[in-house]
Amino acid sequence: MRIEGKEYRTIWFENNIVKIIDQTKLPHKFIIKELKTIKDAINAIKVMEVRGAPLIGATAAYGLVLSISENNDQSFLKKSAEDLIKSRPTAINLKWAVDRMMNKLLGVNSYKVLDIAINEAKEICEEDVKFCENIGLNGLKIIEKIYNKKKDTVNILTHCNAGWLATINWGTATSPIYHAHKKGIPVHVWADETRPRNQGANLTSYELNEEGIKNTIIADNTGGILMQRGEVDMCIVGTDRTLANGDVCNKVGTYLKALAAHDNNIPFYVALPSSTIDWNIKNHKDIPIEERNSEELSHIEGLDEKGNVKKVQIYPKKSKAVNLAFDITPAKYVKGLITEKGICEASSEGLKKLFK
Amino acid sequence: MRIEGKEYRTIWFENNIVKIIDQTKLPHKFIIKELKTIKDAINAIKVMEVRGAPLIGATAAYGLVLSISENNDQSFLKKSAEDLIKSRPTAINLKWAVDRMMNKLLGVNSYKVLDIAINEAKEICEEDVKFCENIGLNGLKIIEKIYNKKKDTVNILTHCNAGWLATINWGTATSPIYHAHKKGIPVHVWADETRPRNQGANLTSYELNEEGIKNTIIADNTGGILMQRGEVDMCIVGTDRTLANGDVCNKVGTYLKALAAHDNNIPFYVALPSSTIDWNIKNHKDIPIEERNSEELSHIEGLDEKGNVKKVQIYPKKSKAVNLAFDITPAKYVKGLITEKGICEASSEGLKKLFK
Repeated sequence: MRIEGKEYRTIWFENNIVKIIDQTKLPHKFIIKELKTIKDAINAIKVMEVRGAPLIGATAAYGLVLSISENNDQSFLKKSAEDLIKSRPTAINLKWAVDRMMNKLLGVNSYKVLDIAINEAKEICEEDVKFCENIGLNGLKIIEKIYNKKKDTVNILTHCNAGWLATINWGTATSPIYHAHKKGIPVHVWADETRPRNQGANLTSYELNEEGIKNTIIADNTGGILMQRGEVDMCIVGTDRTLANGDVCNKVGTYLKALAAHDNNIPFYVALPSSTIDWNIKNHKDIPIEERNSEELSHIEGLDEKGNVKKVQIYPKKSKAVNLAFDITPAKYVKGLITEKGICEASSEGLKKLFK
Repeated sequence: MRIEGKEYRTIWFENNIVKIIDQTKLPHKFIIKELKTIKDAINAIKVMEVRGAPLIGATAAYGLVLSISENNDQSFLKKSAEDLIKSRPTAINLKWAVDRMMNKLLGVNSYKVLDIAINEAKEICEEDVKFCENIGLNGLKIIEKIYNKKKDTVNILTHCNAGWLATINWGTATSPIYHAHKKGIPVHVWADETRPRNQGANLTSYELNEEGIKNTIIADNTGGILMQRGEVDMCIVGTDRTLANGDVCNKVGTYLKALAAHDNNIPFYVALPSSTIDWNIKNHKDIPIEERNSEELSHIEGLDEKGNVKKVQIYPKKSKAVNLAFDITPAKYVKGLITEKGICEASSEGLKKLFK
């Protein structure tokens, strides 16, 4: 998708180096960063230079490519895979991508293994692009239906960033929006700012601006009153892990919007590639919920009056803070799952019908 | 209550000047500001140097005192009353306090009117302190009950600041907490940071720190997962306007927490002095919801590395934002209203039993 008119993907492989858009610098600075070692890849995931379940998976895949370039030894590769999986706990794609790579790479001759790794990492990326495009085409039908009834701008609320910056291209939650826009359907997005890291403001609003899609940033508190006033037609969010029963683990605060949507009879959709489905965990209580540094809450970066990026401490010095990154939206509050294979009910039956 | 060990109220009258704690400077700076004219009082309410429904009412009452000191003319007084009522739209106490003052002041001899105004403004403050104390004693019973069952720290979630800084002393939502703490019941408060103005972090956590009450700041998004994990025993919030049917208008985001509390079987209480009850409006859709400047969202103040207060712009330059300040919590999600007269059901019957 476009940034200042130029087409980008979030990650690409060029001259044996992995290149990413450093998302910790957005929206104030657009910086392309080079990842040259497995450590660089792990760090990029940990500090969230790359984030979003699909992009984390892709970065992990390329991390293994870098690992092989660095040290073409199977024990080093295994250690890299383990370290990658531990780099962030909640998004299931991370493990999915590493497992997929390792299935291809374990026991392979050392002179072949790098090429196989590069091809598989590319394949993971291409597949994600295709899946996200299909999610968009499937979700487009829902937006079209609302538009055909309303005959006016469709107002879509989203939380966090499940945009193209969270994937390789198109995004998950945003893909139906981009496809609707391409088709000439008037859409407007309410972007939850998504504290503490403000991915909704820094990334979702930013990427929608760059594609010319109308959007308004709101405090995470605001979705409820907008729904009470009838100013939201539908919600679409992404997910870091979807259980086989349809429960959705996504950025903290998603659950609150799903409750409000339910209370106001507004359809709440979750968009996901099948790589985010966890077929093993039965109870959402077993999903590891990442707790991140409380400084993400107590400090914030912005531009000062001279246009320089400054970090300021916003909380009282004596106060402590807790920073949980995800919550669970029970399947009963999800109107449907928009996947690459079609839209299904958020339930075991719904998911089985599409995927088994 | 205490700040750095010294007892304060939020507003007081000294040598014919009204003094307030400038709450726009907290938590980074503690500054006492003098209000000398009716314009000063109106401005203090508008820019939120004072905020919180009861404190807004008290400031308006003292605003009329300043108006009389400035120009002891009934037409000037009437104009001042009108301007005060227009200074913020949502909190009902503002109109309540102005009406109460004007009932005492209209048609009174000019040589008497200033003394009557001073006495009535003082009376409004003293009454608020007494009411807040009673709210505390009534709410204490709920906390005691939970503690007697749990025999461990009672975790209370609150939104925004309905603390002593929102009233004259004690607070509404915090008064039961202060009373429990005084009685030796272990309490811990989850303070929603409350974007965009962060009153939960800047004021609630700050005032709890100063009184030695354990508290943790969380993003507004976090209450849901904490409830899902069983880490919240009860919620108490304040209100800017309570309808006769028990619907509660409070700081935006309150509704989302009430929904989550309901979904997790956690009691959700609203604490209020009866001056915040609007007996006239029948439908919450008729409550004017204040829309404030979007810069409150896109910019934020904090301390830089040198300890200086700096304002930074946190949103992308091209983005727009909408800043609605309140939402509605339907009575069905409120377990009870904690008032100065006792605790009642959030319903017409409940309120009538206590107040009619």
